[in-house]
Amino acid sequence: MTKIGIIGYGNLGRGVESAVKYAPDMELVAVFTRRDPATVKIQTAGVPVVNVNDAASWKDKIDVMILCGGSATDLPKQTPEFAKLFNVVDSFDTHANIPQHFAAVDAAAKAAGKVSMISVGWDPGLFSLNRVYADSILPDGKTYTFWGKGVSQGHSDAVRRIAGVKNAKQYTIPVDAALEAVRSGSNPELSTRQKHTREVFVVAAEGADKAKIENEIKTMPNYFSDYDTTVHFIDEEEFAKNHSGMAHGGFVIRSGKTGWDKEFTNVIEYSLKLGSNPAFTTSVLVAYARALARMYKEGARGCKTVLDVPPAYLSEKSDEELRKDLL
Amino acid sequence: MTKIGIIGYGNLGRGVESAVKYAPDMELVAVFTRRDPATVKIQTAGVPVVNVNDAASWKDKIDVMILCGGSATDLPKQTPEFAKLFNVVDSFDTHANIPQHFAAVDAAAKAAGKVSMISVGWDPGLFSLNRVYADSILPDGKTYTFWGKGVSQGHSDAVRRIAGVKNAKQYTIPVDAALEAVRSGSNPELSTRQKHTREVFVVAAEGADKAKIENEIKTMPNYFSDYDTTVHFIDEEEFAKNHSGMAHGGFVIRSGKTGWDKEFTNVIEYSLKLGSNPAFTTSVLVAYARALARMYKEGARGCKTVLDVPPAYLSEKSDEELRKDLL
Repeated sequence: MTKIGIIGYGNLGRGVESAVKYAPDMELVAVFTRRDPATVKIQTAGVPVVNVNDAASWKDKIDVMILCGGSATDLPKQTPEFAKLFNVVDSFDTHANIPQHFAAVDAAAKAAGKVSMISVGWDPGLFSLNRVYADSILPDGKTYTFWGKGVSQGHSDAVRRIAGVKNAKQYTIPVDAALEAVRSGSNPELSTRQKHTREVFVVAAEGADKAKIENEIKTMPNYFSDYDTTVHFIDEEEFAKNHSGMAHGGFVIRSGKTGWDKEFTNVIEYSLKLGSNPAFTTSVLVAYARALARMYKEGARGCKTVLDVPPAYLSEKSDEELRKDLL
Repeated sequence: MTKIGIIGYGNLGRGVESAVKYAPDMELVAVFTRRDPATVKIQTAGVPVVNVNDAASWKDKIDVMILCGGSATDLPKQTPEFAKLFNVVDSFDTHANIPQHFAAVDAAAKAAGKVSMISVGWDPGLFSLNRVYADSILPDGKTYTFWGKGVSQGHSDAVRRIAGVKNAKQYTIPVDAALEAVRSGSNPELSTRQKHTREVFVVAAEGADKAKIENEIKTMPNYFSDYDTTVHFIDEEEFAKNHSGMAHGGFVIRSGKTGWDKEFTNVIEYSLKLGSNPAFTTSVLVAYARALARMYKEGARGCKTVLDVPPAYLSEKSDEELRKDLL
């Protein structure tokens, strides 16, 4: 049994707990929190909730610690810190800062004789795998990543900060015409506006100026100004009924040429439709925690990513079974 | 530069040659054939064509030998034989015999201190990867593999063996309704007939009994009797014009549940649309030849499959570049 610890008990922490519940080769041994442990109720019977400051005393009782904090402020600090004590996995998803985060975690894990894995999930994560496989197999081509239809937490938060907004949810939606153009193999040049649209559902405060809110959303730099955005004003009841989910998904599509004179066009497409973004992300985290435990036993040290992991290591099935049944 | 050799110069051999032509880190050093080398014209200038019986003398001049024979009779004999002399890659695709083929190649490679890789291509190959990734991440689910639309060489051959048939091409076509049912996440039970249809284009000999040919095709056990098959009789001209391609493709789709009470449905879909089956298969072979050379340098020995290879090893880009640009 691989012994799993969780640091941080929000949506991701609960997702890891659920995925471990159904993994026959894994056991949840403790959940660590910054809150008062007495106030944190977890779903698994008999598993202790511990103050994160006491994590060091669990050093020898946990095979892989899964970090469930956020990428903005938690993980840049937490992952290098806990990489000194545990084999850790995180879902760090700020693409631009991956090299820097990797370097910090690699140094910490190497000094401690541990192995870590960063940026595990679906993007970065499964989408990254597919970008690398497709890029390697069709070197003469172009890769496109589309996200959605799904909820962007960052964009929903940005709308909620506007005066007069009580609640808001933002959906990122890939444009069908863009998807079709990419699938045709024509390698189109697509602007930001051509690839995705944004749809926002807003619950306004009583008496708020809706026209002003709508304008503030649509002209918000970085978040909305480069997109075609639709804004809907709805009431609390409709919001609770239809917009409380965390569905997401997306597409990685590469088309490229093969043949002596590049005479053949090929299209590789990978897509996800996720009932819940955090529940799926954590299913990926748990599969890679399994891989990390195996890699540690085999002597791997330092920081790794999904690009370093043989696919067979994710499975609880033996290499023989995989060759027989799934190869 | 990774030095590549090719054994067998048919569609696959030519495909490997084309993929190596565009790989900046690879060099084709020789093509080996069972035919009289003087009769084999290859596309690459300055590369020798050598009798396969002289391959042993190239032992120290080739980093990876790519075996381009067929799975029925060539590879079961050739791969273990050449695994004693070279690091070899093959595209062995008889799923049921993989464990046996693996054992033979593993023993040969281990005894010789070499590393081999079998069953590289898209199925087995990229489809296998996707089956393993999806199975590991969504353990509570069901995986479906669909092939086509594309040309099945084996089925085309079977039709050509019927008396009165001058030429024939068979297309395997996935049924749209079945694909949609799988994508809905409902995990349907699908019979062979419900998943694929078959379409056959036949050039009949003059005076041949077309009704008899059609009946023989449709009732042929294993090949056609379990499918809905459409037969078209066409002339040589139309056959040459519209049915000389080797396009193929397919889908691997898994849907599975996540969440504490399995309340979320997720669908992972991977698909390929290939302008030419052999040109794409060999692009995969060449990317895995790159990986095999790296694994050999790192000390790997014995037989491997795509399930044992870290994705980063397929790329000619450095691990740093991949983390920065594709993760």
